[in-house]
Amino acid sequence: MITLSSDFGSPYPAAMKGVIRQWTEAELIDVTHELPRQSVAESAFWLREILPYFPPAVHLAVIDPGVGTDRAAIVIRGGEHALVGPDNGVLLPVARELAEEFEVFRIQRSEQVVTGTDRTAWPPREASSTFHGRDVFAPAAARVHEIGVEALGDDDGLVATDSYESLRFPEPTLTETAASGTILAIDDFGNAITNIPGSFVADSFGEQVVVDGESVPLRRSYAMVDPGQRLVTVGSHGNVEFAVTEGRGSDAFCLERGQSVRLEKSDYA
Amino acid sequence: MITLSSDFGSPYPAAMKGVIRQWTEAELIDVTHELPRQSVAESAFWLREILPYFPPAVHLAVIDPGVGTDRAAIVIRGGEHALVGPDNGVLLPVARELAEEFEVFRIQRSEQVVTGTDRTAWPPREASSTFHGRDVFAPAAARVHEIGVEALGDDDGLVATDSYESLRFPEPTLTETAASGTILAIDDFGNAITNIPGSFVADSFGEQVVVDGESVPLRRSYAMVDPGQRLVTVGSHGNVEFAVTEGRGSDAFCLERGQSVRLEKSDYA
Amino acid sequence: MITLSSDFGSPYPAAMKGVIRQWTEAELIDVTHELPRQSVAESAFWLREILPYFPPAVHLAVIDPGVGTDRAAIVIRGGEHALVGPDNGVLLPVARELAEEFEVFRIQRSEQVVTGTDRTAWPPREASSTFHGRDVFAPAAARVHEIGVEALGDDDGLVATDSYESLRFPEPTLTETAASGTILAIDDFGNAITNIPGSFVADSFGEQVVVDGESVPLRRSYAMVDPGQRLVTVGSHGNVEFAVTEGRGSDAFCLERGQSVRLEKSDYA
Repeated sequence: MITLSSDFGSPYPAAMKGVIRQWTEAELIDVTHELPRQSVAESAFWLREILPYFPPAVHLAVIDPGVGTDRAAIVIRGGEHALVGPDNGVLLPVARELAEEFEVFRIQRSEQVVTGTDRTAWPPREASSTFHGRDVFAPAAARVHEIGVEALGDDDGLVATDSYESLRFPEPTLTETAASGTILAIDDFGNAITNIPGSFVADSFGEQVVVDGESVPLRRSYAMVDPGQRLVTVGSHGNVEFAVTEGRGSDAFCLERGQSVRLEKSDYA
Repeated sequence: MITLSSDFGSPYPAAMKGVIRQWTEAELIDVTHELPRQSVAESAFWLREILPYFPPAVHLAVIDPGVGTDRAAIVIRGGEHALVGPDNGVLLPVARELAEEFEVFRIQRSEQVVTGTDRTAWPPREASSTFHGRDVFAPAAARVHEIGVEALGDDDGLVATDSYESLRFPEPTLTETAASGTILAIDDFGNAITNIPGSFVADSFGEQVVVDGESVPLRRSYAMVDPGQRLVTVGSHGNVEFAVTEGRGSDAFCLERGQSVRLEKSDYA
Repeated sequence: MITLSSDFGSPYPAAMKGVIRQWTEAELIDVTHELPRQSVAESAFWLREILPYFPPAVHLAVIDPGVGTDRAAIVIRGGEHALVGPDNGVLLPVARELAEEFEVFRIQRSEQVVTGTDRTAWPPREASSTFHGRDVFAPAAARVHEIGVEALGDDDGLVATDSYESLRFPEPTLTETAASGTILAIDDFGNAITNIPGSFVADSFGEQVVVDGESVPLRRSYAMVDPGQRLVTVGSHGNVEFAVTEGRGSDAFCLERGQSVRLEKSDYA
């Protein structure tokens, strides 16, 4: 199985699928092609949230603002999974989630520039400077699938490396009564997802919490306040999030990705 | 085959696919994840329009503004199809379309809360209060597929019930010369789809009809008036719709879902 | 394998998938359903760019502003590929790309109008005047897949024809020092794609070019200028394009599809 993630929208992801189909009959599953455009950190969050729900697979993930520069192309083996994408940190958080120990390989590239639509040469040939999803990463994902994740590294096109870009999400500051954190992502519903663990509020559901000096209900789920009302809840990722029932929390709380947030338990406010 | 429908946008649907793949190799077909957000009635219309075109399948459909409340999770068997989703009425119109007689089962849930990404326990364990698509409905769809639609009800995790939420679309009022109806949905092209049956106008194509006191051409298809012109036609669902050739009928006629509309045959206007 | 392309958005493509599944177990791959709405010429560009990356397949492509008029429905055999769609020119550029010689067949249609969701009759029966993707093209794509591309034409439902709509992209005017061309498409990233071949600038990367009297950097890829800066590059299709790093070239250069553009090499400006 090969999963596909990108910030490409439409129709470029289909070129990747076509190239992969030139190599292999592996099942193709679209994860999303609507990752936040050219936002490495927020895309890294979503990959970490979604990919671990799959059984072992090769995961192609292309969020690549540095395409055509000298940034490397890498494959990461984490447990029985493989991750294929650019060396800009986007794969690191999910790699740590998939396996305590993981290995990084650099994809070698042929300098030979080709034309035409055949992309089955290995190492991949750089046909364009602007679409490595099609010309480098899709062939690499197909190749990794055909080699088999357990056999990676025996192949001449991949070279193990200890040098790669890292990426870590900011850590929240927690006391017994207050949490200071950061918005890691805004989801499609407008829920503003923090890095504050749900455990911080787990004993206070049904009570109020204080956000920016205002008292807001803390509830187990959205429909526990009236439509249009603000609430604080714990999302499916296990983190505290700011939401509006049948509305957009990011708008109502004026939050965007990367912003700092502070949450106080009401008894102590 | 398991089809997937939701109002989740991106990337949450992929978590459902990953969980299903932990259970079964069944083919996965995305119907849409762009159903009108948290709009149970309009989503019910689209499920009724689209799902019956599939051969027998398990249809996962999650439009779930009440997630985390005490609304039940259900499976409906209609003919050789099964429908899996929340008990809020969204599955009822398509259930009636799939089979004259259908049966409803309530999905039992374990109270045991789990963490981690394994979602293959049955009955499903409530890992989150905010994403039952991933934690309850995806395991249920996979389980139903594995049990087999014909064998449903023999299993300890499903309990037949006569108590469930219903949902019916409003009925139009028809005379020989006039129809009063309701907008059931606006499609992506901006066509405003009514509940008035196409048969009401079937003998009048090529003539004019009166909408809100204005004469509008009634045509078999969009391109039969000039681009930008308003028309009344019969859509692929068999109902009267208000359209603009290469434009948006909902804007030109100022219509939104739920609104009342009145149509008069021109001879009598 | 059957690929699906359309400008339908959501959820109509799923009805086509359901109908095809009534006919065949062929793998279904979504290319895109977000082609530029009712824009035959720009959609033709994207089909030509994407479909050739696939191994031999049946390609269903429905961009059909003339649905319900007397425009024909056609199948094109080009090499080992088949293309299925409306006779409005949208399939022609990709047909020429797939094979030097191609054949065009007209899909015959039964006049018998049917109701219900079974769409497996052949020739296809016109159930609606507004959704031939579901009622004509999906059955035709499935039928072509079942017949086999090499056997096309032996079948009573297809008639070879020399009469069909053509479509050609405008040709650029090139001198040694200047190129005059046309914007063929704007992609999802806002890159404005011209018909000027990349070879025109291939020896000048790293230099400046003149667009509308202003000097703009010519670079191999986007990240070679700072975020927010304009550049001229060669896209993955091999053509000159106008871009902004981490921004939208179409906005910054005020370009839309069909517009004329002029590019001068800087030394001669």
